[in-house]
Amino acid sequence: MSNNLLKGKRGIVFGALNDMSIAWKVAERAVEEGASIVLSNTALAVRMGTVKQLSEKLNCEVIPADATKVEDLENVFVKAQEILGGKIDFVLHSIGMSPNVRKKRTYDDLDYNMLSTTLDISAISFHKMLQSAKKLDAIAENGSVVALTYIASQRTLFGYNDMADAKAMLESIARSFGYIYGREKGVRINTISQSPTMTTAGAGIKGIDHLMDFSERMSPLGNATADECADYCIVMFSDLTRKVTMQNLFHDGGFSSMGMSLRAMDQYQKSFDQYTDENGKIIYG
Amino acid sequence: MSNNLLKGKRGIVFGALNDMSIAWKVAERAVEEGASIVLSNTALAVRMGTVKQLSEKLNCEVIPADATKVEDLENVFVKAQEILGGKIDFVLHSIGMSPNVRKKRTYDDLDYNMLSTTLDISAISFHKMLQSAKKLDAIAENGSVVALTYIASQRTLFGYNDMADAKAMLESIARSFGYIYGREKGVRINTISQSPTMTTAGAGIKGIDHLMDFSERMSPLGNATADECADYCIVMFSDLTRKVTMQNLFHDGGFSSMGMSLRAMDQYQKSFDQYTDENGKIIYG
Amino acid sequence: MSNNLLKGKRGIVFGALNDMSIAWKVAERAVEEGASIVLSNTALAVRMGTVKQLSEKLNCEVIPADATKVEDLENVFVKAQEILGGKIDFVLHSIGMSPNVRKKRTYDDLDYNMLSTTLDISAISFHKMLQSAKKLDAIAENGSVVALTYIASQRTLFGYNDMADAKAMLESIARSFGYIYGREKGVRINTISQSPTMTTAGAGIKGIDHLMDFSERMSPLGNATADECADYCIVMFSDLTRKVTMQNLFHDGGFSSMGMSLRAMDQYQKSFDQYTDENGKIIYG
Amino acid sequence: MSNNLLKGKRGIVFGALNDMSIAWKVAERAVEEGASIVLSNTALAVRMGTVKQLSEKLNCEVIPADATKVEDLENVFVKAQEILGGKIDFVLHSIGMSPNVRKKRTYDDLDYNMLSTTLDISAISFHKMLQSAKKLDAIAENGSVVALTYIASQRTLFGYNDMADAKAMLESIARSFGYIYGREKGVRINTISQSPTMTTAGAGIKGIDHLMDFSERMSPLGNATADECADYCIVMFSDLTRKVTMQNLFHDGGFSSMGMSLRAMDQYQKSFDQYTDENGKIIYG
Repeated sequence: MSNNLLKGKRGIVFGALNDMSIAWKVAERAVEEGASIVLSNTALAVRMGTVKQLSEKLNCEVIPADATKVEDLENVFVKAQEILGGKIDFVLHSIGMSPNVRKKRTYDDLDYNMLSTTLDISAISFHKMLQSAKKLDAIAENGSVVALTYIASQRTLFGYNDMADAKAMLESIARSFGYIYGREKGVRINTISQSPTMTTAGAGIKGIDHLMDFSERMSPLGNATADECADYCIVMFSDLTRKVTMQNLFHDGGFSSMGMSLRAMDQYQKSFDQYTDENGKIIYG
Repeated sequence: MSNNLLKGKRGIVFGALNDMSIAWKVAERAVEEGASIVLSNTALAVRMGTVKQLSEKLNCEVIPADATKVEDLENVFVKAQEILGGKIDFVLHSIGMSPNVRKKRTYDDLDYNMLSTTLDISAISFHKMLQSAKKLDAIAENGSVVALTYIASQRTLFGYNDMADAKAMLESIARSFGYIYGREKGVRINTISQSPTMTTAGAGIKGIDHLMDFSERMSPLGNATADECADYCIVMFSDLTRKVTMQNLFHDGGFSSMGMSLRAMDQYQKSFDQYTDENGKIIYG
Repeated sequence: MSNNLLKGKRGIVFGALNDMSIAWKVAERAVEEGASIVLSNTALAVRMGTVKQLSEKLNCEVIPADATKVEDLENVFVKAQEILGGKIDFVLHSIGMSPNVRKKRTYDDLDYNMLSTTLDISAISFHKMLQSAKKLDAIAENGSVVALTYIASQRTLFGYNDMADAKAMLESIARSFGYIYGREKGVRINTISQSPTMTTAGAGIKGIDHLMDFSERMSPLGNATADECADYCIVMFSDLTRKVTMQNLFHDGGFSSMGMSLRAMDQYQKSFDQYTDENGKIIYG
Repeated sequence: MSNNLLKGKRGIVFGALNDMSIAWKVAERAVEEGASIVLSNTALAVRMGTVKQLSEKLNCEVIPADATKVEDLENVFVKAQEILGGKIDFVLHSIGMSPNVRKKRTYDDLDYNMLSTTLDISAISFHKMLQSAKKLDAIAENGSVVALTYIASQRTLFGYNDMADAKAMLESIARSFGYIYGREKGVRINTISQSPTMTTAGAGIKGIDHLMDFSERMSPLGNATADECADYCIVMFSDLTRKVTMQNLFHDGGFSSMGMSLRAMDQYQKSFDQYTDENGKIIYG
């Protein structure tokens, strides 16, 4: 179903890997809503992945780019404007990776070269994207840029590791650049803080199963899905949210505003079932 | 222009007074987007105001109600369902008033009966609205409720007075009830924290002129208008934001994420023009 | 052990009920640190309670007051100055009660008279205290006022009910009045957001046992105790924190900045022990 | 005047440059409160600066270190324990520098090598400090670590540039490492977000004069001084704040909780004096 929210708009979607990716859903929904888009991902992801499949389905082009390289990003913005026939109206940044997480280095045993890579890929790439776009004047007046983030930027979750710091920096870049791009071109920049999602990236996080269960029970509306996140991105790209900028927007079924839900606590209590006395008091030690 | 975002939906808009009101704009846009609505305001406002004019323009009914009275609110929900032919999909709460502000009582000289009235009208009315609706099971699954608020709930602005405390409570009610209505019926409840707006209510705030100028210069996208706020409300009522709940959403051109802008500081510096020495240093005292 | 942090200072401690009360500990510690104090609580609490015992131990006077009555509060400030021989340097507000909670009314079935009482006792009493003190010019320059609060003001916890809204309002009052009392008299006003604590009040909260266990496991330093909270209050009353005002200060072992700890998740996972297959995947339904 | 708050404690103070430095004041106050300390700064700062003067005054040693080098930091922790005769009880991180700011590169024209340097010096140095300390088990149980930060991490101030992103990352590191060091050793880690301060670093910030004036007028208690900040650090190092961790603590006279003060607005309005008509309305354009 389409509401023509992006009719006539041109967009770039970074980070679609496969049909579990949020970026993949965003690309599909953007086209459905009337946008013309190009996709971008790393050369490796393009070679191995299913990106081609998506581009064929959506009848759009793929421009490979290493998002840590300014020249690659500039190339995306130059080419995208040629292909789409004008300035870009919206951009999605859905890029993140931590070698420390992959190599199972704990947060008190970080490899600092790996930390640099985490920051380069997951946070600084966003600044490079914005700086490249602005220098090329590639984004149209009142354009909209969204990056995906996670609540770990603000509240520590074990195992999320140096990605937490990268996401904190990403959200800061959205504010810092949002000020400048806003005052000069009316371009708005926001981050969407999404529920834990079973994407290929998400599946790699330690204990994601139980975390998602906890998060599901804590959130009054349950975890937000990738499809629902795509809908929210569409809304943020549309002209109906023109004065929203520099915000971190929680899209999480209410999780971020919960201290404790009855459902989560009910489940938590079960863990003590065999450790409670006849009055239901916990037997410690 | 319509995107049919609210096609087939039924809504209640509380608080439309005249064509400067945000609620007025929301009502117009909701109808434009395909919704059927009813309006509600106090009997006094209905008698004196231009509400009738709006109802005729939109071809919708007005149900008078004192939002501090449970029975009045119940009546609105019962009648609205009869008139619109089904459960309610969205509700706007745009209600607030402080007798202390009106009577120019300062915050360190509050009249406590007036404070009660401020809270009753501006915050507790929201709880009564939600409790009445829930008891009558008047809001449809996945329905959406929005209340309008202002950043004074979180950062003190001189002259905003006891309305700041009322807004803080209003935002808390959105979270507290959002949890319950969410887990039981999938209903989402959010507040939109809007730029200072030159409505009839806004015009009454002390020094609103200069405040709006400062806010305009601080916000990279400038102050958000009532029309733009209406667009944002539509988005929050639509099915595209189904997993956003218990949030306070800033719709303010970026103001809330600004510490100091160049434009505001440039203006601020002018105030010292005649008080600076030949090196541009401020001459104090 | 004393650091003479409050040497020569005069204080009023509202809300000491028995030796589990945080206010009780604050009173003891304040005297230990060199302060002269008076205690205040309701006439009923004074009659039934063990307040007399504390006043004898600390050799200080008790001034009964209903904190919802302006004249009672004025009386406390007038008398306290007479007894202590000068203006007041610090005040603790540790007062809160919800008849809705007591009567087991759920949040979607509030009695609105009871809600008024909740607000009067738990939030508005703080404003009355400050307004009375300021009108009497009872607080010394650079004085310090602290009210105790709980994170439920910002994140919903099931069962905390209308106290969440009252605490949100309490924190707002601290900001609103902190601005005025700060600019005019240099008086600072803050709230301390304490871990769940097994006081007489705390013991009444639904499921407090398991909540405290969860909170303990989530917080890297564990739950903060009443004794530790008293230490933090002393610090906030001392001259070493003279520029801290209008803040909500978390004293909670880190809980407020946690998304999920390993210890809490380990415990949570146990709840699934009998519901997981041989690969550790949760068996749903 | 001393309260013996740090009697018998051992500390390391990073970043004292001259007697305008906050770290300098912290060193003086820590010794006054009974601590034994060592100072650390870069070899260059030690050579050129007045650090020697401070070390002589306080009768303490200086260990030069480049805080971006793990081996240097390890050396500081090893040597400091030898010199002070035991594990370290408190650490101050007061380190930050942006080559982009120095070279007047604007935020939309960052040099990315310089950005790496900004992050290395201003944020990652904090992680390296903590990781080195933890690997060496150099910090005593219940130890306390504080890093200085600025509100620009959360709200954009023109001219603060990439330091805003570095400070956001610094605050995230405090949370992320605070969780781990807390649960394992009871060590607490916080950041203090200080008013703009006329240190050597502060003096380099664009328009600092007018910013400080604005901040002074916005804050009900005025800007916090370096001396007052030192007092607050002492409190955070003492045993009276043992359950405060992972927090960003505003020490700013109330600035962070202000939306607009009367004094700031009065000043702001003066800027329009010559641009207002006889009714005081602003004459635009």
